[in-house]
Amino acid sequence: MNDAPARVLDALRRAGDEPCSGASLSSDLGVSRAQVWKHVEGLRARGYAIEGERGDGYRLRKAPDRLYPEELHHGLETQWLAKTIHHFEEVDSTNRVALELAREGAAHGTAVVAEGQTAGRGRLGRSFFSPPHQNVYTSIVLRPRLTTAEAPTLILAAAVAVAETVADEVGEPDRIEIKWPNDVLIDERKTSGILVELGVEATRVAFCVLGIGVNLNVDPATFPDEFRARATSVSACCERRVDRAAFTRRLYTRLEEVFDLHAREGFAGVRPRFDALFRMQGARVRVQDLDGARTEGRVDGVDPDGALRLSRNGGSERVLAGDVTVVKEDPA
Amino acid sequence: MNDAPARVLDALRRAGDEPCSGASLSSDLGVSRAQVWKHVEGLRARGYAIEGERGDGYRLRKAPDRLYPEELHHGLETQWLAKTIHHFEEVDSTNRVALELAREGAAHGTAVVAEGQTAGRGRLGRSFFSPPHQNVYTSIVLRPRLTTAEAPTLILAAAVAVAETVADEVGEPDRIEIKWPNDVLIDERKTSGILVELGVEATRVAFCVLGIGVNLNVDPATFPDEFRARATSVSACCERRVDRAAFTRRLYTRLEEVFDLHAREGFAGVRPRFDALFRMQGARVRVQDLDGARTEGRVDGVDPDGALRLSRNGGSERVLAGDVTVVKEDPA
Repeated sequence: MNDAPARVLDALRRAGDEPCSGASLSSDLGVSRAQVWKHVEGLRARGYAIEGERGDGYRLRKAPDRLYPEELHHGLETQWLAKTIHHFEEVDSTNRVALELAREGAAHGTAVVAEGQTAGRGRLGRSFFSPPHQNVYTSIVLRPRLTTAEAPTLILAAAVAVAETVADEVGEPDRIEIKWPNDVLIDERKTSGILVELGVEATRVAFCVLGIGVNLNVDPATFPDEFRARATSVSACCERRVDRAAFTRRLYTRLEEVFDLHAREGFAGVRPRFDALFRMQGARVRVQDLDGARTEGRVDGVDPDGALRLSRNGGSERVLAGDVTVVKEDPA
Repeated sequence: MNDAPARVLDALRRAGDEPCSGASLSSDLGVSRAQVWKHVEGLRARGYAIEGERGDGYRLRKAPDRLYPEELHHGLETQWLAKTIHHFEEVDSTNRVALELAREGAAHGTAVVAEGQTAGRGRLGRSFFSPPHQNVYTSIVLRPRLTTAEAPTLILAAAVAVAETVADEVGEPDRIEIKWPNDVLIDERKTSGILVELGVEATRVAFCVLGIGVNLNVDPATFPDEFRARATSVSACCERRVDRAAFTRRLYTRLEEVFDLHAREGFAGVRPRFDALFRMQGARVRVQDLDGARTEGRVDGVDPDGALRLSRNGGSERVLAGDVTVVKEDPA
């Protein structure tokens, strides 16, 4: 949306319950009354409930349940993250768009957000179920000063930010956990996934595109069969609808704070918060690696570089990547 | 191209100067004579010079100067690289296509090749001049068993394969060098660049997309101003046209051999060949990093992880990424 309608919207928001006359909007914003009317009609077409006619004053009654930049920017308190937001009603994949923006030189913090994705991707080449107007699908372009070796811990840091935002929303932090490496679970069911793609220059990260999907209001009954037993949404766990725009603003704010901490102190600075959300310590797990090979062992923590450590046959083994499943054990 | 026309083409190639009758093609390939004629017409439309009419025999006189899969596969001796080739007459960027194929699960070795690119990208967010039918622009999907920390040396290995293929074509290896990290120069002018994008799973590379552009037959006089002083092409240095399809086959074969070596022995195995092409050792250089900061020093080799080592003010410093320029020194 260009600047003038956003300014009309801001003026209506500031006025609250007081009606704003076309004349005052016109003089405050330096546009003609006909243009004010045109912008109000434009906002209505985008779903804003605006009372009043041309002669009377206008009142904003309700903003639509959309992740429009003017919604996300309203009250967003970040310094650099999501200062530019590209919004799509529907897109194949926000990561595809963000990666193209990154290639073209998009700034650190540029965000892409979509109401729905037609080809949402998850980890391990899986699809990410992305129905419209229920959840948040966002990709962020980062230009961190990191080697490719350090990049994986940035992804763990992102998972911390997502998990903490979900925990704040749910209100019962004990129900939230990070499933290594970067899934977020509520009550042991997946509610968020992160997809990562990097541009590389020699040994450094030139750009990092983080794609984050969080199931907010989707009804788990509508999940495709393959997800139903293992996935959930925030609203299903809270038994109330989540304000998607407010959630996304809090997510962006938390991500910025965690990325700044990671930039200052490295993963060590984020580590205590990761560990507080990592509830697999000591659990017996089965891991299937990217090539399909399986291994089983007991979780012995996460190494400083982000690898999972398993104890197994009296020894210790590093898992670089893979799909982890907790093996249920009979109580001894 | 689907299978049947490729089989007609193969039969014509095998026959060499002998005419192939429509009747024998029909019975050998198990298709009707009308279909044989249709496939011959299809091949002619793609630029194959095929003599003969329906009644007489057909003879292949000349293949077109195109990087069609049927051209690249003819005599290609790789085991896994470029077994699947996606060819485009024109595309925005072969890396964009290859990355989408990788996301969708494309196999290790899948290749994308284009006659021209409308938005070819190079390192450091620069554009890569990509006029049609002159050069080779190819992107390869790899699924290596590497950590993100090890990925940079795979890119150095790719530069070795490109440089050796160029050196074979030019015939005078001393004129060829690798400019750290992965540009290939002839007579100190750039003739090839490599662009790298990774999909990441925890601490591992899920897929690696390597985009390789090599200036083969382009006339340096046609370069945009910003490239003219610093770039060249193989044909400008050899003073003859390069067979693009044959070059691309040799490139694929060499890449496969070097990647297999890297998989078996790591960068250490490729190292002697990299060092033989790395002629900056001991040179005084200026480096501009990704954030624009500049430093100057003397090249003291490449570290095992791929970083450039500079000696500077009596100490030693690692350069993780950046643009390196040799500083001309007055002879002492």
